[in-house]
Amino acid sequence: MNKPILNSKRVTDITRGPLPGSKKIFVDGVPFREVALSGGEAPMRLYDTSGPYTDETARIDIEKGLGLRRREWILARGDVEEYDGRARQPEDDGLKRGELLSVPQFDRAGRKPLRAKAGRNVSQLHYARQGLITEEMKFIAARENLGRSALADGNSFGASIPDEITAEFVRDEVARGRAIIPANINHPETEPMIIGRNFLTKVNANIGNSIVTSGVAEEVEKLVWSIRWGGDTVMDLSTGRHIHSIREWIIRNSPVPIGTVPIYQALEKVDGMAEELTWEIYRDTLVEQCEQGVDYFTVHAGLRLAHVPLTANRVTGIVSRGGSILAKWCLAHHKENFLYTHFEDICELLKQYDVSFSLGDGLRPGSIADANDAAQFAELDTLGELNKIAQRHDIQTMIEGPGHVPMHKIKENMDRQLKACDEAPFYTLGPLTTDIAPGYDHITSAIGAAMIGWFGTAMLCYVTPKEHLGLPDRDDVKSGVIAYRIAAHAADLAKGHPAARLWDDAMSKARFEFRWRDQFALALDPETAQAFHDETLPADGAKVAHFCSMCGPKFCSMKISQEVRDAARGQNDSLSTAEIRAALAKKAAEFKQSGGEIYVSKSAT
Amino acid sequence: MNKPILNSKRVTDITRGPLPGSKKIFVDGVPFREVALSGGEAPMRLYDTSGPYTDETARIDIEKGLGLRRREWILARGDVEEYDGRARQPEDDGLKRGELLSVPQFDRAGRKPLRAKAGRNVSQLHYARQGLITEEMKFIAARENLGRSALADGNSFGASIPDEITAEFVRDEVARGRAIIPANINHPETEPMIIGRNFLTKVNANIGNSIVTSGVAEEVEKLVWSIRWGGDTVMDLSTGRHIHSIREWIIRNSPVPIGTVPIYQALEKVDGMAEELTWEIYRDTLVEQCEQGVDYFTVHAGLRLAHVPLTANRVTGIVSRGGSILAKWCLAHHKENFLYTHFEDICELLKQYDVSFSLGDGLRPGSIADANDAAQFAELDTLGELNKIAQRHDIQTMIEGPGHVPMHKIKENMDRQLKACDEAPFYTLGPLTTDIAPGYDHITSAIGAAMIGWFGTAMLCYVTPKEHLGLPDRDDVKSGVIAYRIAAHAADLAKGHPAARLWDDAMSKARFEFRWRDQFALALDPETAQAFHDETLPADGAKVAHFCSMCGPKFCSMKISQEVRDAARGQNDSLSTAEIRAALAKKAAEFKQSGGEIYVSKSAT
Repeated sequence: MNKPILNSKRVTDITRGPLPGSKKIFVDGVPFREVALSGGEAPMRLYDTSGPYTDETARIDIEKGLGLRRREWILARGDVEEYDGRARQPEDDGLKRGELLSVPQFDRAGRKPLRAKAGRNVSQLHYARQGLITEEMKFIAARENLGRSALADGNSFGASIPDEITAEFVRDEVARGRAIIPANINHPETEPMIIGRNFLTKVNANIGNSIVTSGVAEEVEKLVWSIRWGGDTVMDLSTGRHIHSIREWIIRNSPVPIGTVPIYQALEKVDGMAEELTWEIYRDTLVEQCEQGVDYFTVHAGLRLAHVPLTANRVTGIVSRGGSILAKWCLAHHKENFLYTHFEDICELLKQYDVSFSLGDGLRPGSIADANDAAQFAELDTLGELNKIAQRHDIQTMIEGPGHVPMHKIKENMDRQLKACDEAPFYTLGPLTTDIAPGYDHITSAIGAAMIGWFGTAMLCYVTPKEHLGLPDRDDVKSGVIAYRIAAHAADLAKGHPAARLWDDAMSKARFEFRWRDQFALALDPETAQAFHDETLPADGAKVAHFCSMCGPKFCSMKISQEVRDAARGQNDSLSTAEIRAALAKKAAEFKQSGGEIYVSKSAT
Repeated sequence: MNKPILNSKRVTDITRGPLPGSKKIFVDGVPFREVALSGGEAPMRLYDTSGPYTDETARIDIEKGLGLRRREWILARGDVEEYDGRARQPEDDGLKRGELLSVPQFDRAGRKPLRAKAGRNVSQLHYARQGLITEEMKFIAARENLGRSALADGNSFGASIPDEITAEFVRDEVARGRAIIPANINHPETEPMIIGRNFLTKVNANIGNSIVTSGVAEEVEKLVWSIRWGGDTVMDLSTGRHIHSIREWIIRNSPVPIGTVPIYQALEKVDGMAEELTWEIYRDTLVEQCEQGVDYFTVHAGLRLAHVPLTANRVTGIVSRGGSILAKWCLAHHKENFLYTHFEDICELLKQYDVSFSLGDGLRPGSIADANDAAQFAELDTLGELNKIAQRHDIQTMIEGPGHVPMHKIKENMDRQLKACDEAPFYTLGPLTTDIAPGYDHITSAIGAAMIGWFGTAMLCYVTPKEHLGLPDRDDVKSGVIAYRIAAHAADLAKGHPAARLWDDAMSKARFEFRWRDQFALALDPETAQAFHDETLPADGAKVAHFCSMCGPKFCSMKISQEVRDAARGQNDSLSTAEIRAALAKKAAEFKQSGGEIYVSKSAT
């Protein structure tokens, strides 16, 4: 995907501790964000992407990395072996001959990379098709289930979300190629998660190294910050120096799957000259990253030589970095894209590590004008062909999508993708629904992301406010992730995901009952919610007040409405409308007699 | 609508001057925001809501108010008369007996209010049905036309937007009741604008007085700030002291229509006791505001006594302030809503001033859980009946809508409104598509606003980030207006509005050609766009650089893409794909021979 480098302020510490009002809990080893509520309400259990960093009891040492949660599961399957791995090269870190590494190296304490034993395929898809329910699948079933009840109200556009997620359902969805579990056997630190349209909609956040790296803590903090606010996966789009070393620090400390675009690193190895790229250099880079534990690779294998002329009359040409690298390579050699011609070779490699494909859309539109054009859809059809090949190899595969698309052209993207790619998970960048608001593209794109998520996109790649203008800082990353969590949740609601409504209802109930602290704690961003409330009504008493600053204590619609409800209902919750009306008339008379005062103090009643 | 008071910082001056890179121009007296472009591009002409405040040549004195642009037009129609008007009462300003006014009074310099001569109806709708094309209609046709060409690409859901807006088209849309021109004859300062689904989607911003008013300039500044960023109309939701005086300052200095919810002021006159409200007090308040020049009134006449019990089992009851006031009144008296019973009396009054109805949705849902319920739709059906009555009286009418609605339930709102209300313009608050993100409700609601705008909503009432938490400050107002301009524009694009695409295309072209200053100038918010770019690349040279900070000078997809295009096109813009492919092969060979260097300096080529 796009836009790599996080221009972070200097960070010396990793952000720790739960969100205000939340607590990390574990149910059978599966982590959740739990929000304790007042007013006799049961605690709310929410999906939690943040890993051990929000667990106050966890001991974290980034020098040692996270615990190897999945290692036992992986080894127990008996189909992998340790091996020495590829020899480290100076160019892995973008160093010139003779140049020395200047960042600290993560110490793996002698642990060697794993790969499949000869002839074996260790992908979750392969297991699923063998009928095997893996530990990862069980974990995911529990994780996706939350506290759901049998709610169902939505239009899922043909998605089929069951009332209860079982491990068998997870296996079946993976086996159909309709969902993927990015889970490199060399990244055992992950808390397994799933990407598919019959599961909660996921969000990806992009990070990348700074030009000047002040320390590895800063690089790890970018990851921690992204997942704190809800990134389900993180793509490391670093370029330049120390790319290998920094990636190692990130992976070893990441509880979420890590994605990369390996062509970026390969390009560094040939000094930025696209035409110098070769299959051998690219393949070697894949091996390097497979051994490190990257969970999914963006591979722009669908951009074919014949597609390039289709972009000639576009307003914004080719805007994908990977796409333009490969277009240039095709152009310089007048040959078919080597990722396309070597696609099965890539499959042979990925199955040894269970790295998932994220088939890149190098020809995605970069403007409203270019949306849904011949170039874009020609590439999509090729991605569909490639998906069939990947499926034949039992390689988990998702498909990347646009980009910039006006609202009326969004659904066509989803419909075509489902058809061309046999329901493989769709992973879109936005889309932005207009080009006129640089500085606000988290909003222009959250609109499109919510819609395409509703239509069936399984993971939404975030866009920050700095898109098209500069490098995101911490605030931008947070703004981007929050905007995309909103889009993903709005999509889940509209699809009728049974667990999604519980969260909204808990918030709405807290709002109606003036439980201010519960509203803050339940918020996607409790810090901002409370800070905004404090600006107008900072007093501690205001957090328990039966009014808010908007109407003030004198006249509050919620308060009156409660009285209307109480009057109508009396003591009985199951009255008919006629009965309610009668009760209402009676209460109305009482109301009048009592002088019509609506703010009767608790002690007076 | 909701949420009144703007908690503004102290302001002593009114914001003046154009947005960076823009200039106010007039074409036949109609104002536009013009953006001069480099690269041989024609200037871009944009719709401009900001009035004379962004005109550097305009002399503005808030003590005198804006020029009386429409007064001549109004008088020339020969159907109005000056009269003494209603006598001013202390309670108009929320004062107790004996209390004195403590804010300065606007001096009308002897100008008296106007009203229709006996038996006349001075509404634009009445004129339209007589076949009269008013000056207001001509102005609007020119204003809506912009620089459109015959583009047409979208799904308008039955809207019928012509390629060129003519004054006759404006008249016809008004005559059909499908669009309104809020234009009180006592607010001649306005630049006429239209609200209807066959026109550009409009945005309303709410303002309100502070609890402590430090000066009238501060109150006027709230208006100026809202329209600077794109508010098409402004609702003054003030309550409490000095409400009449402040409204006078706002109206006299407003180039956009002003809306109010008169029941708020009426309630002040009975000391906040809803049950004390009477038709007489309400009617007197309407007269007061008609004479001042309010352009549209939110009237919650559709909330009937029989609807109240339908809200009894809601999660969040009644959340509209107006709705809860009237529900309480109905309850206390066990009588039908007096706005419903006196609806024709209100019509008789409004036609004398050409005040438009905004029929309020007092029972709009306040949570995802309550969306599209029986209470909401029962009221909508009543609004449909009332619209028929208003149409019989030739009163311009729009219909207010929700609120909180998950994506899959949005379209039903629009479909029902069109049917129940005979295509009268819909005016919605958001809707918010999820409840879980307090602090970000400008985003949760921009998603819903963009969608319902696409489906046909004519005006979107903004929501600020402070919604549900506190009073918006200047930054919040700007964030809200910008988010809603994005939603409105995305809707116009998706409807296929012929003028909308031109703006996106100009931006995209500037982006592809690395015309950075043009990108900033074309932005919805040029200040933020440039500030974000400056954060990463502050050097002045970077504003003309053929690269951006995202990929850096070393590797830029846009740049390569330009080369691909040039290579493919050669000198001929109208090549066939086969010809392009051949040209490409030739250029590819040249590329290789030249060493494949993509950053050839200008002097070298």
